[in-house]
Amino acid sequence: MISSEYTRELCSRDSAAKILLLVVDGLGGLPHPDTGKSELETARLPHLDALAKGGTCGLISPLGAGVTPGSGPAHLALFGYDPFKSEIGRGALSALGLGLDFARGDIAARLNFCTVDAEGLVQDRRAGRIPTEKGRELCQILQRAQVSGVKVTVAAEMEYRAGVVFRGEGLGDEVSDSDPQVTGVPPKPLIASTASSERTVEVANAFLGQAAELLAEQSPANMVLMRGFGRYPELAQMDEVYGLKALGIAGYPMYRGVAGAVGMDVVEVGWDLESECTALKERYDDYDFFYMHVKKTDSAGEDGNFDLKVQLLEELDAYIPRLQVLNPEVLIVTGDHSTPAIMRSHSWHPVPTAIAGQWALADGASEFSERGCGAGSLGVIPSTSLMSLALAHARRLDKFGA
Amino acid sequence: MISSEYTRELCSRDSAAKILLLVVDGLGGLPHPDTGKSELETARLPHLDALAKGGTCGLISPLGAGVTPGSGPAHLALFGYDPFKSEIGRGALSALGLGLDFARGDIAARLNFCTVDAEGLVQDRRAGRIPTEKGRELCQILQRAQVSGVKVTVAAEMEYRAGVVFRGEGLGDEVSDSDPQVTGVPPKPLIASTASSERTVEVANAFLGQAAELLAEQSPANMVLMRGFGRYPELAQMDEVYGLKALGIAGYPMYRGVAGAVGMDVVEVGWDLESECTALKERYDDYDFFYMHVKKTDSAGEDGNFDLKVQLLEELDAYIPRLQVLNPEVLIVTGDHSTPAIMRSHSWHPVPTAIAGQWALADGASEFSERGCGAGSLGVIPSTSLMSLALAHARRLDKFGA
Repeated sequence: MISSEYTRELCSRDSAAKILLLVVDGLGGLPHPDTGKSELETARLPHLDALAKGGTCGLISPLGAGVTPGSGPAHLALFGYDPFKSEIGRGALSALGLGLDFARGDIAARLNFCTVDAEGLVQDRRAGRIPTEKGRELCQILQRAQVSGVKVTVAAEMEYRAGVVFRGEGLGDEVSDSDPQVTGVPPKPLIASTASSERTVEVANAFLGQAAELLAEQSPANMVLMRGFGRYPELAQMDEVYGLKALGIAGYPMYRGVAGAVGMDVVEVGWDLESECTALKERYDDYDFFYMHVKKTDSAGEDGNFDLKVQLLEELDAYIPRLQVLNPEVLIVTGDHSTPAIMRSHSWHPVPTAIAGQWALADGASEFSERGCGAGSLGVIPSTSLMSLALAHARRLDKFGA
Repeated sequence: MISSEYTRELCSRDSAAKILLLVVDGLGGLPHPDTGKSELETARLPHLDALAKGGTCGLISPLGAGVTPGSGPAHLALFGYDPFKSEIGRGALSALGLGLDFARGDIAARLNFCTVDAEGLVQDRRAGRIPTEKGRELCQILQRAQVSGVKVTVAAEMEYRAGVVFRGEGLGDEVSDSDPQVTGVPPKPLIASTASSERTVEVANAFLGQAAELLAEQSPANMVLMRGFGRYPELAQMDEVYGLKALGIAGYPMYRGVAGAVGMDVVEVGWDLESECTALKERYDDYDFFYMHVKKTDSAGEDGNFDLKVQLLEELDAYIPRLQVLNPEVLIVTGDHSTPAIMRSHSWHPVPTAIAGQWALADGASEFSERGCGAGSLGVIPSTSLMSLALAHARRLDKFGA
C-alpha cells in the first residue's frame, strides 16, 4: 500500500540486487467444469510448484475487486503506477501496441475504415469488417497523406482497425471522436475541448480530407473514422521512481510499448520463450530489473482453449530453471490479470503470485495455482503493491522513519 | 478500490443477469466461551455451508478495521456507497426507520420527550423513560401542531423517542440541537449555521411553541427536545450508478428507507422469511437486483441471546433453497455488520460472505462462518467492494482500459 511518493524517497540506489519479474499474460484461470481444476491446477508444473512452496505467495488484484482490466492498466498496476490516474488513452495504447514510432509530444488516434455514401453519410462503421490484409493495403495508401509541418504515421491493426500518429509542434489530445456511433449520418466534426488541441483538429481535418481523396475509389472501405485521441503517456520513469535500470523483454509490441512508457529499455524478441531467455541472458549484466512477458497464455484463454493454456503453462514451467540459473536476488512469477479459458476473456479474478528470494518466507502454498497461492501469506493485495515488495525483497527499499 | 465514478462508466446495461443480495443483519459473531464456537459455527447450516464450499468466500469490512458501524452506514457500504461521504443524518435515519412519509427536500429531526419545570428548565431529558405506548399517545397529540406552509409529520419511536418531518419550501438542515445534554438549564436555542437553514429554525421554533402548549398538561413528558436535524439523503440512484433496476425487500421500515434512498423500489413485508421469499418470487421477473434483509439475527445478538441467534440462523438456512430455485446468476449471502451475542452490540469484526455463481471459484472455504469464509480467496475486502464483485460475477461490468 506504499504510494510511489514514499517509494521514491525510500529507494536505495546502492544495491546491485537484481529483480526478475516474469509476467504470464492472463495467468489466472477457473476450474474446468469436467474436472473442477483450473488451468494451473491441471498443468504439471514441477518448477513453478517448487517455487511457490519455497517462496512467499498470494493473489494480486489488478484494479480492485470485480474490475476486469485491459492490458494497459493491468501492466501499469504491476509496475506500481496508479492504473486509474495513469490511464493511457486508447489511441496511445493502439499506437504502443502497433509498435509505431511514437514518442513524447506525439498524438495518436485510432482509425476505423468505414463506408460512406455519395453524400458522405456513414453506411457501415466497419466497412464490412474488411480482412486484415486489406486493412494493411489501405494503410499503405493512407500513408501518402501529407500534412504541412507534421509527420504522419499510419499502421494497420486487425481487420478494419488502424492507428495514426501525428508528430509536430503544439498538439493537444483533447479532441472528440468523429465516429458517430450510428449509421445514416455524416461523421461528427472533431471538436477540441482545449485551446492546445485546436491545432490537432486542424491537422486531423487535413488528414481526413486527404483520406477521403485517397480512398475515394476503394470499396467498401472508402473513408476513415477517428476516435480515442491520446498523447504519448507522460509517466514517471522507473529509474527516477525506483532507482532501477530496467529492461523489458516482450515479443508483442504493445508490451514493449508500455514498458518503454515507464522508462524501460526494451528488447524486441520473438514470441517464443527461447528467444526471451536468450535475450535475458545476453543483457543480464546491464540491468537491475527485468520485465519478461509471456503472451500466448492469454491468447489461449481468450480463445477458450483450456488444453492449450495448460500446455503453454507446462512449456513455461520448463523454462523456469533457465531463469533461476541466473540467480536473481528476487524472482517473481505473476500475471497482469486472469483470463480463464472457460470465460474466453480477461476477468477480475486476482492473480496467483509467488516471490522467491532469500528473504521470502516459505508460507506453505501447496502449489502454484489460484487456490495454492490464495493460501499464501500475502493474502490478496493490489497489484500496485508488488513493486514495493520486489524492491523490499531485493533490499532496495530503505527504512521509513527512525 | 474502484470508485463509483468508474463503476458508473463500466456498468453494462445490456445484461439480463440477476443478482440476489441476502443481508443477514448482525451476521458475524464470536465464539461462545463454553464451546469456542461462534453462532455460525454452532448452528447446523447445511445449505449455507454448501454455498460457501461451492462459492467464493471472504470477509467484508463495513467501515474499515476497528470501526463499528451503525445500520445506515453499514448498508450504504454494502450498496457500494462511501459510508463516510454519504452519511445520513441521524434525524433522517430515524425518519427512514419510522417509515415516515419522507422525501427529497424534507427535513427530519429526532424528538426526545422530556420534563421541564415551571421556569422551562429541563428536569429530565428522557421524561422518566416513558413507555413506548405513552410515547405513541403523545405523538398523536403533537401531530395537531400546525406550522404555516409546512406539513408536519410526527411518529413515535421506542420509549421517549420520536421523530418529526417538516415538508416545505427552502428548508436547510444545518441546525443545532435544542437538547442541552444536562439538566437544570433551559433547552438550547436552535441555531442555523447556513442561511438556508434559518427558515428551518423558524419552522422548528413554531413547532416547539405549539408542542409546549399541546403537552402543558401532560406529566412527566411535557415538552420535547430536538436533535439530529437532517435532510432526506440525496444519493445517486442505483439505476444511474449501476444500471440496475433494484428491489428492496425488508420487514423493518428503516431498511426499506435506506433501500429507497439509493433508488430501489421497496416492498413492505412481514418480518418473517416466508413473506420475504413470497415477495421475492412474485416480483422476481421485474427486477435485476434484489436486496433482501433479515433483521432478527441482529436483535438476538444485541439481546445477548446466543442460542436464539443460532436458531434463527438455522431457520434462515432452511430458506436458502427457496432462493436458489429462482436461479439468480449471482447469489450473495452476507451481513451489514457483525453483532456477536457475547458483545450484545454491533461490532467491527468483518462479516462472512459467500458469492455463488457460474464464475465464482470454489476456494475451499470449509463452512459458512467467520473462520471458514476467512480462509476464502477474497481475503478481507471493504464492504464497498462487494457491489463491484456482484456486478462482475453477473458479467455486468465492462473491462477497464484496452
